[in-house]
Amino acid sequence: MATTSATSPEKPMRQQMEEYINKLQDTIVGAFEKLDPTSPKFKRDSWVRPQGGTGRSCVFASQPDTTSFTNNGGVSSANSSQNTQETILEKAGVNISIVHGILPPAALKQMRSDHTSIPLPETTEGLPFFAAGISLVVHPRNPHAPTVHANYRYFEITERSPTLMKTGEEKDEPSDNPEPSSPKILAWWFGGGADLTPSYLYQEDAVHFHKTLRNACALHSSALHSAFKKWCDEYFYIPHRGETRGVGGIFFDDLNDGQHVRLPGSDLDPQSTRPKTPQEIFAFVTSLGDAFVPSYLPVLEKRHSIPYTPHQRRWQLLRRGRYVEFNLVYDRGTKFGLMTPGARIESILMSLPETARWEYMSEMDEGEEEKKLLEVLKVPVDWVNFMG
Amino acid sequence: MATTSATSPEKPMRQQMEEYINKLQDTIVGAFEKLDPTSPKFKRDSWVRPQGGTGRSCVFASQPDTTSFTNNGGVSSANSSQNTQETILEKAGVNISIVHGILPPAALKQMRSDHTSIPLPETTEGLPFFAAGISLVVHPRNPHAPTVHANYRYFEITERSPTLMKTGEEKDEPSDNPEPSSPKILAWWFGGGADLTPSYLYQEDAVHFHKTLRNACALHSSALHSAFKKWCDEYFYIPHRGETRGVGGIFFDDLNDGQHVRLPGSDLDPQSTRPKTPQEIFAFVTSLGDAFVPSYLPVLEKRHSIPYTPHQRRWQLLRRGRYVEFNLVYDRGTKFGLMTPGARIESILMSLPETARWEYMSEMDEGEEEKKLLEVLKVPVDWVNFMG
Repeated sequence: MATTSATSPEKPMRQQMEEYINKLQDTIVGAFEKLDPTSPKFKRDSWVRPQGGTGRSCVFASQPDTTSFTNNGGVSSANSSQNTQETILEKAGVNISIVHGILPPAALKQMRSDHTSIPLPETTEGLPFFAAGISLVVHPRNPHAPTVHANYRYFEITERSPTLMKTGEEKDEPSDNPEPSSPKILAWWFGGGADLTPSYLYQEDAVHFHKTLRNACALHSSALHSAFKKWCDEYFYIPHRGETRGVGGIFFDDLNDGQHVRLPGSDLDPQSTRPKTPQEIFAFVTSLGDAFVPSYLPVLEKRHSIPYTPHQRRWQLLRRGRYVEFNLVYDRGTKFGLMTPGARIESILMSLPETARWEYMSEMDEGEEEKKLLEVLKVPVDWVNFMG
Repeated sequence: MATTSATSPEKPMRQQMEEYINKLQDTIVGAFEKLDPTSPKFKRDSWVRPQGGTGRSCVFASQPDTTSFTNNGGVSSANSSQNTQETILEKAGVNISIVHGILPPAALKQMRSDHTSIPLPETTEGLPFFAAGISLVVHPRNPHAPTVHANYRYFEITERSPTLMKTGEEKDEPSDNPEPSSPKILAWWFGGGADLTPSYLYQEDAVHFHKTLRNACALHSSALHSAFKKWCDEYFYIPHRGETRGVGGIFFDDLNDGQHVRLPGSDLDPQSTRPKTPQEIFAFVTSLGDAFVPSYLPVLEKRHSIPYTPHQRRWQLLRRGRYVEFNLVYDRGTKFGLMTPGARIESILMSLPETARWEYMSEMDEGEEEKKLLEVLKVPVDWVNFMG
């Protein structure tokens, strides 16, 4: 059971995770800034959640290009694209948040299906939670360079502190008293993943991305990668389009020391161990987090300066329309966020591309290159074992 | 009760509605084509629903402007915007559909809350339905010209035909046997509305649009407009933005001869009659349908050639992002459509703009004009009685 062991010998896991995602955010933003040194820096923006918690957004936005707003009509500005600096990225966000508060009984009830160690909410009172996570989305400008998304998070549900239990009236934990003497952890888990969304398919990029993630997984268990790769293909599926959002990666949730529905064999077969303790799973998550830069940056470096045509840009914007459709219609995190009163909408919708396009019965001539992408979105590929 | 009266002396209501929306589609498309005679015509496209039904899409799409795809990077085509013809509309669709089939018990159960004349689904069998409707969305190119949406529909649920009742196995009514000798109508209702979404607020446009709709309503009852105007403001609300999609119009659903939750007074007060029979409500709906062109075309005519700046185009594209957010996250018709197996996705997503834009913490200087719009989106205005 997931009750007592969520601390390392030295530091509580929440603190370890917080320190890790802080460092990872700097590493990732630093890597992008180094790749494109003449471009403006990411904008750093720290915020405080009134209900409890803090965060730091690092966001990149390209200067609006006035030529794209005249759009064959209206008043065109005299000095247009020649004056605007070209940047590798079009829109990107690398955000961390460390939040805490009280989960209402309805939310706890829903979580119990995956976390039976959460006690049944007896009354109308909720339970304290803590969540620390990093979330990033990068949309490059060049249609040959893929969009990437990654997200790693740690979640805890704890006992109500004696003060809270006595009065039982607070709706949220007071923000000046965030961690009253290490409350007992009732449930904990990690979740996350990373996935790649190209507009044009370069098979070697998909192979490189998947292999880098596979190698990170393999440091911890041979059972993890194939299960979480499959989960990713299933999660990022757009039913109304009959295609996946991109070429996948890995996706996992609810990972702790209990039985896991996606890893049934590994719990029975002593040969195939997998990370179980908080410290072991944290090590797995940090391997994946550390793998982000090597999984993606070499791809971006190869693709960002390939010449592209207006036709290719148009295709990219149509594909970004599909990205918007997935995120607004299906993504659980986005939907949950939009329904949360007081949520930071700008952070939740940071994942949306700068520009997206919808054409009715698109009359684009889908050439060989466009069709190549659509094929792998309809039938996911086992990229790690891909032979070309 | 809504059982026997849904036919006129001459023709079944389904036929009257079908004929009306066919004519209205031609009238509306004709009005747009007359306004912009040098622009390409709407594309007519008839389709057949394999499960039963037909439809006709009339769609306008502007020629993709290659300058907007170079976006300060990549290979720019030599002959760009100068060669592209400017059109008043950017993207528009005026669609009709006449469909029938079998509604599954789960759908019937949900509809019973508003239509108690639907019998409780006894077994796993469903009941036949018929739906005829017109749906339109027009996104003009010029940021000073508002987007408009309208939609009118008639819905029937009927008894199962003797053949269907005997075998009880068909999942859908055979398309070669659509209306076996006028089956008994168990429930019927009309729904619809029209609403305006400007990027820049011209108060006189909102007043004109609302007054035209009010006058159409007032031909039939004094009780209708204020109730359905209010419903519209509530329906097109985007909770996560704390604003409405646009400046409203009217919205109604489930209108038949029964008690209506939005029109409580009118059923008790004999002074305030309202349309109740199918023929009376059909007359109300045709008045509204007929009011579309006079409500919107004069506005478009006044605004489509006002010079605009890149700043104003950018603001328009950001507002279109909000339009996408409403339609994909909240619109009941869109959500229902996306979840319907075999639905025509292109028709459902026709409402989305050609281009939409999202900026993180948009740094646009919201000037007086932008703020004027945001104010009326946060607190809906009684436009019919607006005094400036």
